[in-house]
Amino acid sequence: MADLEPAVSRETEADPPPWFDVHMFVCTNRRPDGHRRGSCAARGSEPLRDYMKARAKEMGLGRLRVNSAGCLDRCEFGPVIVIYPEGVWYRAETREDIDEILTVHVRDKGRVRRLMLTEKDVPPGKG
Amino acid sequence: MADLEPAVSRETEADPPPWFDVHMFVCTNRRPDGHRRGSCAARGSEPLRDYMKARAKEMGLGRLRVNSAGCLDRCEFGPVIVIYPEGVWYRAETREDIDEILTVHVRDKGRVRRLMLTEKDVPPGKG
Repeated sequence: MADLEPAVSRETEADPPPWFDVHMFVCTNRRPDGHRRGSCAARGSEPLRDYMKARAKEMGLGRLRVNSAGCLDRCEFGPVIVIYPEGVWYRAETREDIDEILTVHVRDKGRVRRLMLTEKDVPPGKG
Repeated sequence: MADLEPAVSRETEADPPPWFDVHMFVCTNRRPDGHRRGSCAARGSEPLRDYMKARAKEMGLGRLRVNSAGCLDRCEFGPVIVIYPEGVWYRAETREDIDEILTVHVRDKGRVRRLMLTEKDVPPGKG
């Protein structure tokens, strides 16, 4: 049977196990005040990242990492977070939002629909 | 049939399509010179990130983004890159390494074994 599988599938099977089970990237790009697109840091992403790191550690969520990232290019919908490997994007504006993402998405493997970005959340000029 | 599927599977199916097909994170964390662990920026990751951004654009690789990231915590093996959604990690030290990753991994959906980090690449004290 294995011989019938496509090469790409075999490559994937041979990949090392995930280094982090949950890898969260919080945009902390900062643009000057008054910039047309705004920026996640100007919308408060840095303290939210710090809170998320601390809460995730307290909750003992396993092989999880919260990282800062440069501009994720969905600035208008920030503060923006993307979670891999599933590639789900959220907008988090408060500590309560962060708690809900950690509890519902990460711990319980569900989705926080009210905070999720979709394919309709397209920055102006990018459509 | 759909009723028999587990809840997590249904959640996944309902996720929005990937915003980026290939999302590459280059660690650009910089520690002071002489730090025990070193850092990816001290190992030259910033110009490699710039080169990767420019080359990916030239190659027309579609919905791909190259982002800077904070410390990915595999400093000893840097400059470190992680590619999602597949979660494959690479060490890239030269422009030729970047070209090979973009060509073989991203364009051809293969793997660059000689540059790939595996589960054996564990930072000292983290095993």
